[in-house]
Amino acid sequence: MGQCIVEPPISWLMTAALSRPKLISLAAGFTDNASLPVTETRTLLDSILHSNKTGQPALQYGSTAGDSKLRQLTAEHLQKLDGKRGKNYATGRTLITGGSQQLLYMTLEALCDTGDIILVEDPTYFVFLSILQSRSLRARGVRLERDGLDLAHLEKVLERLKKSGQLRRVKALYLVSYFQNPTGVTTSFKKKSAALKLLKKFERAAGHPIYLLEDAAYRELRFTGQDVPSALAAGGAAERVIYTGTYTKPFATGARVGFGILPEPLFTAVKRIKGNHDFGTSNLLQQLVARALATEIYDRHVVRLQKRYAQKARVMKSALEKHFPAAIEWWESEGGLYFWARLPKEISAGVKSKVFSTALKNDVLYVPGELCYADDPSRAKPDNEMRISFGSASEENIRKGIARLGKVLEKFV
Amino acid sequence: MGQCIVEPPISWLMTAALSRPKLISLAAGFTDNASLPVTETRTLLDSILHSNKTGQPALQYGSTAGDSKLRQLTAEHLQKLDGKRGKNYATGRTLITGGSQQLLYMTLEALCDTGDIILVEDPTYFVFLSILQSRSLRARGVRLERDGLDLAHLEKVLERLKKSGQLRRVKALYLVSYFQNPTGVTTSFKKKSAALKLLKKFERAAGHPIYLLEDAAYRELRFTGQDVPSALAAGGAAERVIYTGTYTKPFATGARVGFGILPEPLFTAVKRIKGNHDFGTSNLLQQLVARALATEIYDRHVVRLQKRYAQKARVMKSALEKHFPAAIEWWESEGGLYFWARLPKEISAGVKSKVFSTALKNDVLYVPGELCYADDPSRAKPDNEMRISFGSASEENIRKGIARLGKVLEKFV
Repeated sequence: MGQCIVEPPISWLMTAALSRPKLISLAAGFTDNASLPVTETRTLLDSILHSNKTGQPALQYGSTAGDSKLRQLTAEHLQKLDGKRGKNYATGRTLITGGSQQLLYMTLEALCDTGDIILVEDPTYFVFLSILQSRSLRARGVRLERDGLDLAHLEKVLERLKKSGQLRRVKALYLVSYFQNPTGVTTSFKKKSAALKLLKKFERAAGHPIYLLEDAAYRELRFTGQDVPSALAAGGAAERVIYTGTYTKPFATGARVGFGILPEPLFTAVKRIKGNHDFGTSNLLQQLVARALATEIYDRHVVRLQKRYAQKARVMKSALEKHFPAAIEWWESEGGLYFWARLPKEISAGVKSKVFSTALKNDVLYVPGELCYADDPSRAKPDNEMRISFGSASEENIRKGIARLGKVLEKFV
Repeated sequence: MGQCIVEPPISWLMTAALSRPKLISLAAGFTDNASLPVTETRTLLDSILHSNKTGQPALQYGSTAGDSKLRQLTAEHLQKLDGKRGKNYATGRTLITGGSQQLLYMTLEALCDTGDIILVEDPTYFVFLSILQSRSLRARGVRLERDGLDLAHLEKVLERLKKSGQLRRVKALYLVSYFQNPTGVTTSFKKKSAALKLLKKFERAAGHPIYLLEDAAYRELRFTGQDVPSALAAGGAAERVIYTGTYTKPFATGARVGFGILPEPLFTAVKRIKGNHDFGTSNLLQQLVARALATEIYDRHVVRLQKRYAQKARVMKSALEKHFPAAIEWWESEGGLYFWARLPKEISAGVKSKVFSTALKNDVLYVPGELCYADDPSRAKPDNEMRISFGSASEENIRKGIARLGKVLEKFV
């Protein structure tokens, strides 16, 4: 067998969520059902398929890098978000993919050989860890503070890798920079810029570029505060920042259209890999998203969505205040889909813990925080944390689910 | 860099076809524009998105293996085509992917380590060769006869590999069994069964299973003669046949929904890889295809399509008879999208040949046959062949294109 294949945690979490009708899942990273743009998608597809002139191209193969209009609109969209222009945002650097997940996978394929090291936030997105594992790549965790990456720790990790002669295996720092999955933490622009400088500093010893791979999947799901520019807007970003984003979270989830902005030679390498994977994402879905962006449908939907998630986050916050024991610390976020809770150190909330099994028995599911920690020999995995999502559950189920979970926790804390 | 990345030929062929308006492309494997199911797709999507009850699930994430209804309909569809039932066609073995291309890629990921060998038809599908190359896998060609795989040569190749101690690196035989890309050749059921037995015979010496990977992408594009059962219907198929198919060619091309049927442990391995690639194909597109299959829309469309391609193939045949010099041998097919032409041995039609550049100068493009031959040290690559497609060109352009190409060939033959 060509890969180190283990069951990825997301599979059984998703299956559990889909197969137990009474279960309230605060685990799934699904988006909110009620706010999915059903009518909007119908209108857009109807207008595309109304005539052969636009219908036939949408139902034909396209090119590997993606629909040129969508690539352009995507590049412009990012320029607008960042309030900046320039080559960092060129259409020619923009690649359309089957969700941003596919871009993460292909970027690692392009960048890494077996045994290479990717620096990740500690904790981080667990499917990313699953990719690393399957490709026999190693992860090293960088501590996360309430306001993002711990820069002092990043430097320490890099120094340690340099000393042990492993810096030449380090290919990138992976950053889920907005309302991070799983913690909800956002890394400030200042920190992103500083991280980029730090990586640059160690490049000479590494003997090759060390990229900043910024995963901005949740960026547009902000419901309070101001947007933060991406790392693309930082000094030195042009040749070192890979930005991945998606239309899956802020718009039509089931369409699974994502994108990436990549500097050369990575853009070409990843495009060629895409040629081998599937030689291009569904043209029909690309036309759908392009038309949503070109009209005001996309922007209007994002505003509605932000309000909706703001409301659901408020509901979860009140429920947490009401039902969670005081000994449990939790972080709220300014956007995204998640709250992050931390039990006292001595109490495990991991996959094999009593807390987790008792919660399941009481028909409530969360993501055990330990799944979000890389296998890193330099520290033990914390197992006293949980990711709690308000994404897919209804307001009523958020209240009920947190009440159930609170009751379970009362027994252990 | 983690991959051996070269420009895959399909990319520049596609780009050439898309960017030169006057060019008549007989190269692209695109489907026929005029017969794309624009109205049908509009109706189906409209009915899915008409209510929140069906619209919301279609716009939400699904599960990694695919929509359960579509998996079931796909398994049933194959049973109907093969006129057989049983565990070989179980829904539980069926995986939905982003085109069958993605399944091919992931199967090789699951099956192969660097340096492993895949037996391929000589010539074969060039994007498959591109995957092999990118993953540092080796190909060994098995001669193709007018009625499919040359079994005596298959045995000879296996014997030779056994003698040289390389059989333990052989993981599968890849067969494009219906209206093969590029030659249009169909391998008979008898030959498929015999090939399966031959592979079995060599398994002991290999020390592991040798799979038959059957790519049936063009199967439903038959316009004359009787369908041939797939290798799934052969004795010993249950644990050794991987079948890949697609709804891209026979239905909505731009939707890019494909599938595979895989025995364990491959099914689980590939599903986990899919979890890392994108954790599931677009749910919206899966619902679209499922609804087309469940109604009569799919079946009716396939019949229309078969008639349409029959007509286009007739047009190409007459044009070839009229315009191609007598010294050029060409094969017609009972289905699919391609004719295969062979120039006298001493005349090159390869990428760097005068024939190819003169054709381009005269605004007509074909796929040089040499691109479809694996790098196989045991023989030189023939370069006197061409794949000519009647898939995407209009009838008028088929006539014009073949006339142009015939004129070019007159100069050289």
